[in-house]
Amino acid sequence: MELNIEKNVISEQDIVSNIKGLALDMIHEAKSGHPGIVLSAAPILYTLFAHHLNINTNDPKWVNRDRFVMSAGHGSALLYATMFMAGYDLTIEDLKQFRRAGSKTPGHPEYGVTPGVDVSTGPLGQGIATAVGMALGGKILENRYLTQPSNRFDKNVKVFDHYVYVLCGDGDLMEGISYEASSFAGAHQLNNLIVLYDSNRVSLDGTTDHTFTENVRERFAALGWHTEYVKDGNSISEINKAIISAKKSSKPTLIEIHTVLGDGSLLEGTNEVHGKPLTNEDLYQLKEKLHLSKEPFAYSDFLRNEMIRKVTEHSRKRYDEWASEYQEIKRLSATNIDYLFDREIPFDLKKCNFMFAPDYKEELRNTNAEVMRVIAQHLPNFVGGSADLASSTKVHLQEQKDISRQDFTGSNIWYGVREHAMGAIMNGLALTKFRTFGSTFLAFADYMKPAMRMSALMHLNPTFIFTHDSISIGSDGPTHQPIEQLAMLRAMPNMYVFRPADANEIIGTWDFILQLKERPSTIALSRSEAPLLNVSPEMVRFGAYIVKKEEKQLHGIIIATGTEVHTAIRIAHILKEKEGLDIRVISMPCMELFLEQTEEYRKTLLPTGVRTFVIEAGSSFGWHQFVYNQSYLLTLDQFGTSGTKDEVLAYAHFDQDTLIQRIKERLK
Amino acid sequence: MELNIEKNVISEQDIVSNIKGLALDMIHEAKSGHPGIVLSAAPILYTLFAHHLNINTNDPKWVNRDRFVMSAGHGSALLYATMFMAGYDLTIEDLKQFRRAGSKTPGHPEYGVTPGVDVSTGPLGQGIATAVGMALGGKILENRYLTQPSNRFDKNVKVFDHYVYVLCGDGDLMEGISYEASSFAGAHQLNNLIVLYDSNRVSLDGTTDHTFTENVRERFAALGWHTEYVKDGNSISEINKAIISAKKSSKPTLIEIHTVLGDGSLLEGTNEVHGKPLTNEDLYQLKEKLHLSKEPFAYSDFLRNEMIRKVTEHSRKRYDEWASEYQEIKRLSATNIDYLFDREIPFDLKKCNFMFAPDYKEELRNTNAEVMRVIAQHLPNFVGGSADLASSTKVHLQEQKDISRQDFTGSNIWYGVREHAMGAIMNGLALTKFRTFGSTFLAFADYMKPAMRMSALMHLNPTFIFTHDSISIGSDGPTHQPIEQLAMLRAMPNMYVFRPADANEIIGTWDFILQLKERPSTIALSRSEAPLLNVSPEMVRFGAYIVKKEEKQLHGIIIATGTEVHTAIRIAHILKEKEGLDIRVISMPCMELFLEQTEEYRKTLLPTGVRTFVIEAGSSFGWHQFVYNQSYLLTLDQFGTSGTKDEVLAYAHFDQDTLIQRIKERLK
Repeated sequence: MELNIEKNVISEQDIVSNIKGLALDMIHEAKSGHPGIVLSAAPILYTLFAHHLNINTNDPKWVNRDRFVMSAGHGSALLYATMFMAGYDLTIEDLKQFRRAGSKTPGHPEYGVTPGVDVSTGPLGQGIATAVGMALGGKILENRYLTQPSNRFDKNVKVFDHYVYVLCGDGDLMEGISYEASSFAGAHQLNNLIVLYDSNRVSLDGTTDHTFTENVRERFAALGWHTEYVKDGNSISEINKAIISAKKSSKPTLIEIHTVLGDGSLLEGTNEVHGKPLTNEDLYQLKEKLHLSKEPFAYSDFLRNEMIRKVTEHSRKRYDEWASEYQEIKRLSATNIDYLFDREIPFDLKKCNFMFAPDYKEELRNTNAEVMRVIAQHLPNFVGGSADLASSTKVHLQEQKDISRQDFTGSNIWYGVREHAMGAIMNGLALTKFRTFGSTFLAFADYMKPAMRMSALMHLNPTFIFTHDSISIGSDGPTHQPIEQLAMLRAMPNMYVFRPADANEIIGTWDFILQLKERPSTIALSRSEAPLLNVSPEMVRFGAYIVKKEEKQLHGIIIATGTEVHTAIRIAHILKEKEGLDIRVISMPCMELFLEQTEEYRKTLLPTGVRTFVIEAGSSFGWHQFVYNQSYLLTLDQFGTSGTKDEVLAYAHFDQDTLIQRIKERLK
Repeated sequence: MELNIEKNVISEQDIVSNIKGLALDMIHEAKSGHPGIVLSAAPILYTLFAHHLNINTNDPKWVNRDRFVMSAGHGSALLYATMFMAGYDLTIEDLKQFRRAGSKTPGHPEYGVTPGVDVSTGPLGQGIATAVGMALGGKILENRYLTQPSNRFDKNVKVFDHYVYVLCGDGDLMEGISYEASSFAGAHQLNNLIVLYDSNRVSLDGTTDHTFTENVRERFAALGWHTEYVKDGNSISEINKAIISAKKSSKPTLIEIHTVLGDGSLLEGTNEVHGKPLTNEDLYQLKEKLHLSKEPFAYSDFLRNEMIRKVTEHSRKRYDEWASEYQEIKRLSATNIDYLFDREIPFDLKKCNFMFAPDYKEELRNTNAEVMRVIAQHLPNFVGGSADLASSTKVHLQEQKDISRQDFTGSNIWYGVREHAMGAIMNGLALTKFRTFGSTFLAFADYMKPAMRMSALMHLNPTFIFTHDSISIGSDGPTHQPIEQLAMLRAMPNMYVFRPADANEIIGTWDFILQLKERPSTIALSRSEAPLLNVSPEMVRFGAYIVKKEEKQLHGIIIATGTEVHTAIRIAHILKEKEGLDIRVISMPCMELFLEQTEEYRKTLLPTGVRTFVIEAGSSFGWHQFVYNQSYLLTLDQFGTSGTKDEVLAYAHFDQDTLIQRIKERLK
């Protein structure tokens, strides 16, 4: 690992210069991008890739590769140029297409687009928090999968032992999510996490003197991190030494690397160099300074081969060893780890024998806990937790162990009161091939929204579980009563939002979710009790279905979700009995899935012209597409209030009697 | 200020016990609430109210009162019981109505409901971050309004000099927003902010050993705070001393007060005592321990009077002095401070002479900057800033000074990359009577959502300005391209969402917003250039209006917002010319305002049965209510991509030619 760098100082700086030149040319060609970080952080990325990152550029998805997260995602040009020089499957033509549609080199790094890019980044703070999730995932793998003493090994050997490296800037560290995740990493002592902090004290609007005067290293030390300081951000050997120390620490490490934003530019050290291309004059004087050809996209094959040689030199041995160790663990270990390779789940939830007596009546959060308990028995990679609300959301997997800094072999994660970091950590776990879930109250989905969006953008498959899903929670009051949250989540592309009505729908929901590979999902659950519907879990995959048929003549239809389905059925019976109105009730556990069905199916459920209502204890927003007219929306467009459940429902004109009255008036 | 507490130790602890008893009875009666914090933090609240908080319980809205923020909002019972004993307008009957609908004592503290409650709290972290905004507001007032030397004063005297106190728990400090705001407070050296940290190391799910092992005081020291430690959270004199030291500091202060959650309960020190009522047995043994009557809601008039006496003793003088100083400043100062008392704004934006030449064409963010510049000339309390994107969102008020720790008399706030804290700080400023704004990119509205919701819940009136409001920003890619954000914001109760199309609509938007007293607003702005529409700013207040009338026969209607209005007008002209289709174009700068209009007005614009399209570069969610059918939604329900503007629009089938094609197909 410790190369004799001193000998090669000259040629290594030449490689760094070549990386800078390529990245600046990319920005120049695209007429858009961020030169500042290219010039401050190129030596950091070079040192990391050339001397530490255990990778195989020919096998960029190697499960035990070291991960690199470009949390400062606006440094994408630097990343692509470095990866090109390191030997990834990127060509000069790809670099020329920087920021162009359909290219391998988008404006911010995108997971699934560029080989070797492990996470999408851009919104500040998300990268470092996702990296914490990847580090946690790494620790779980590291501790769960050990070879046992055998002919081949005379002691336990770790099959997984990769590091997660992050490059971040001041902006990342100002974001609250990065603090939450860093505090979590400290509490869990994730010593496989190494954050390289490009400390240039300049952000988009100016120097950080105005805004960010804290002592970052002291803060991280207070969080239980090891810290290192590199005085000269251009010194490959200093950076190298700091990374070597970091790897020896029993804690996560922050390496503050003092750099100059836009180093060498005529605008160096100012915010002017942060976010727009350099002038021609500036670019040329810089290339001269760096002994680079003025020709755009010039690079030296010699230097590139030298960098590839360095990458290979420190990575090859581990890659080769690993393959045989992995075979060994597959042979020796009883635990199925096929999921690491995206294999199908050999498990059918619908066939699990859930014993719900016909008179079963239980809070949906508790029923959900039971279903999750069974899933955990079958899926070793089913891990998750709650943002300090497991006692309320009930997602603690009863038969599984907790994960803590003392023991990473468990399945239950204690996130603390950190919803936003939980979302990003879930993304990190999903990127490490875990089937993961996280939970809080639905009202606090707001705190997680930015991370949930990253999940949807990256086509990951974590499951966000939200209980306390309506005003019916009562006395905690309007801050805790969701109104617009279901609309917010349903409006998000790629997200499936489920609001199951009973135990069968919960089973159907999970059955569908477990097959999802490239879409995140949300489950909204009530704290209220619900009896069993006489339905098959299979129906959930249609998104909506008839849960109570009209008897003869169809006077109207009620669409409902969650516990409101039971209210709707009761109302339908009462309207039949008392008013002779013949009502069909449709349960719609997942609007997105229903909209994916054939028009024929949709029209069968909701024939044109029939007076159709929606009952949902949430915003009307998005429901207009199903109702007869605006006044058929029995939904909530104002905040709730603090009171008993009955008081709150009456306050919102959402109690059963008022709902009956409102429907009756419209149907008469 | 420094009372001789020692002499009164016995009776003071009796007052504390009485507060505890009342709060526990409230929770018992409501069968819901949080006893743990009552028992840990009662001595803290008592000490603060009895010895420090400068208030007049008969004038709870006194502008120079010290503020108290119960960031741990689940401690509402403790707060109300303390306020009752301190002499606020609360009765025992009010306490008995704890958590009941319509009461003065809701489940979490609500601004505007309970006299003396200065902020709504509950969602963790919001309170402390809002308090930072109140402290910033206090510093601005303190530094802007000094009496000048005169007959009465021989030197400058501060007219405003109040403190902002916070009670917070572990949960608050785990939330990212509290870190962001605390780092901001450190950077600005807000020494009028004193945070009392109820350090009991237990949260809802268990002890914080699992989750929150950081050294909190060291963290805050690293952020530039002064810190204090109180070893015995039951010691009124220790707490008192720490607050006295805090007031002398030139920095914001965190006082860590070591307490025991549920102190004295049979469940003390465990998470079991956090969030549900005590058993009868436990309640009775506790009352016995505290020498309290078992009778529910018993209290001693003697003790209450004693507490009221203490509150008055340290507050009265300042209150009386203040009134005369305030008169003095009104007389001496040229600056209008009437806004502090909610007076009307004596200023009509529409009458300001904006000189837009007929061929004016400018990026909407720049036009908005010009309008804001003019507003700032007229409104001294117009303050705001950006989360490190002022260079891009252009909200920096050009003629106004910056606010910094060296000078609080300016108007431009540098928030750093802290969207979430910015939202809460804006709420704090609004609570301190500032007309405030904050800005970032629309995609990052996600980060601010929880704070924006608090704004809507509290009926405050800050303005959230989001630029880069669609995929047309191009090369930064999908992480920076909003899709579902407008839907998310429109679904929020009480929020007005504006997306103006030109300079006139921007003026109309601000004109409407400046009159708003109890509703927050959002302005979404394009980075693209837009010419002038031939419209009056007045039309904005109708939410929607005809911007291009059909010529003769009405073949169809296009509703559009923002820069898409110009696209729609161009399309209408082309369709007329090439296809003979006669199209009306409606600009809808504010959907909420349009829905507030009479049915007659709405029908005039959008007659039933006419083939109506919507063109908006955002989610279809919420737009169904206006269109002819689903296929008439020319909106975006998938994420964008990185590319040039034209590439991205083509990718999304949202370029002008494709839009024309889509409309033509449907109208033929």
